[in-house]
Amino acid sequence: MKSAVQSYLESLQDHISLSIERADGKAKFVEEIWQHASGGGGRTRVIQDGAVFEKGGVNFSAVSGILPEKMAAKMNTESTPYFATGVSVVIHPYSPMIPTVHCNYRYFEQYDSQGNVVKAWFGGGADLTPYYPFLEDIQHFHRVHKAACDKHSPDYYPKFKAWCDEYFFLSHRGETRGVGGIFFDYLSENLDATFAFIQSCGNAFTEAYLPIVERRKHEPFGEKEKHFQRLRRGRYVEFNLIYDRGTLFGLETRGRTESILMSLPKEAGWEYNYAPSADSREAMLYRCLRPRDWLNETAI
Amino acid sequence: MKSAVQSYLESLQDHISLSIERADGKAKFVEEIWQHASGGGGRTRVIQDGAVFEKGGVNFSAVSGILPEKMAAKMNTESTPYFATGVSVVIHPYSPMIPTVHCNYRYFEQYDSQGNVVKAWFGGGADLTPYYPFLEDIQHFHRVHKAACDKHSPDYYPKFKAWCDEYFFLSHRGETRGVGGIFFDYLSENLDATFAFIQSCGNAFTEAYLPIVERRKHEPFGEKEKHFQRLRRGRYVEFNLIYDRGTLFGLETRGRTESILMSLPKEAGWEYNYAPSADSREAMLYRCLRPRDWLNETAI
Repeated sequence: MKSAVQSYLESLQDHISLSIERADGKAKFVEEIWQHASGGGGRTRVIQDGAVFEKGGVNFSAVSGILPEKMAAKMNTESTPYFATGVSVVIHPYSPMIPTVHCNYRYFEQYDSQGNVVKAWFGGGADLTPYYPFLEDIQHFHRVHKAACDKHSPDYYPKFKAWCDEYFFLSHRGETRGVGGIFFDYLSENLDATFAFIQSCGNAFTEAYLPIVERRKHEPFGEKEKHFQRLRRGRYVEFNLIYDRGTLFGLETRGRTESILMSLPKEAGWEYNYAPSADSREAMLYRCLRPRDWLNETAI
Repeated sequence: MKSAVQSYLESLQDHISLSIERADGKAKFVEEIWQHASGGGGRTRVIQDGAVFEKGGVNFSAVSGILPEKMAAKMNTESTPYFATGVSVVIHPYSPMIPTVHCNYRYFEQYDSQGNVVKAWFGGGADLTPYYPFLEDIQHFHRVHKAACDKHSPDYYPKFKAWCDEYFFLSHRGETRGVGGIFFDYLSENLDATFAFIQSCGNAFTEAYLPIVERRKHEPFGEKEKHFQRLRRGRYVEFNLIYDRGTLFGLETRGRTESILMSLPKEAGWEYNYAPSADSREAMLYRCLRPRDWLNETAI
């Protein structure tokens, strides 16, 4: 399983980074191969200052080591030898009319002292974070992920959509990070079937996101919209540094910091007590930041 | 003890916010009085877009409630009723030639089911975060805090200076947050003497910081220096959201989010793999980001 997953994820990284580069048309990913001190390593690819994408990363890693006690406690498991492989994608476009997007698909194994696998599971998901939301974009993103889910089980999309709303939630703000998508973790049953499902999701990513980029890349915007984008990117930073499991896992297992924190935007801002004025385009976003049944909505 | 500490901290808030306002000369603090859902509340004062200060907060709070299990575990204590009062100050100047500064002084009590105090302690400290460091500024800040410490014990400055270097450390970056100052926590012995010490430290704050502001406010700078300041403010955000006890305590006990996160800068940035070029003024800062015996240094 381990090596099959790893090679799928490597090819997924290639597919996504190539597609993002084509959609940008100007900037190229910079690649860095790195080794983890405790075993394994990764291939980080970052794009910056493109024609469309301000900052983004498409990272692959496959690392092994001993799970630190503190991390094991958070994961409700034991401190054992482990192997973890994953692809993480965060893309922050320059235009506030194009949403930020994230996906991550990962596989985890824990071993006993003889090296036998004692636990193995998949996790992952994809979510969309618009600044100036368009209903058809949100529905497109959800529809493509629902189709990927439906190929495997009619229960998946409703379950993983709800899990996404729950996971990408800033409780100190009372807001979801964006308009959601799908999320799941600790899927340890029927690993072969789950791996097939993971592939459907991974393969759906570019189809879920790039048509939105195409549709919005010529929308006009100005400094007012960039300013709002910076404030909302502040919330993205808050989520990633306070709550995100992958980020905290990476930092606590002493992964490569610059690879882990590629998810942070080029610019973010905080203003005390900011609130959009009623009926503004900015206020529209706030109506999106709670769990909503997007595929059945008719208006934002 | 509780009410004496609380009234000292309220007067400290007044003193610091008035002094900051005078040093700015243009902007005024905006004040907000808020109630905590579980008991008590606070008085938040934030200054924004001043002549000197880009964003800053001088907050007072005195809250009570039941310590959440998760927070109690982090603090190596039990989940009991508690009372906590403190003043928190973070000031981010506009000019990258003036350091960001922080101080916090706080008092904490825990009670048994009869309402008797079972534990009580003080914590706090002050630290300086320059962008373009000047040795005389760093030494001034340390010298004033050393003098406040020395009035109470010759052991305090060396001990609390070292604790500061250890506490304000970003382990994922291998860097201190800035050039330190003093830090201490869980001081539960001789509460009366410790309260007197806390007052010396609190009273030293404006003398430790404002002369630096005066000295640097006319230093020239341009977009290059603002850019570097944004990147370094990204590190400040990382520290506060990943490590800072006060921030995490506030968020986990469901304090007022906008008051807690007043510590975040107006603007911050992240660039993949940023490193200053050798011998640049920016590289100079990196030589400061490790524990150093500032009062005995002759050069940065």
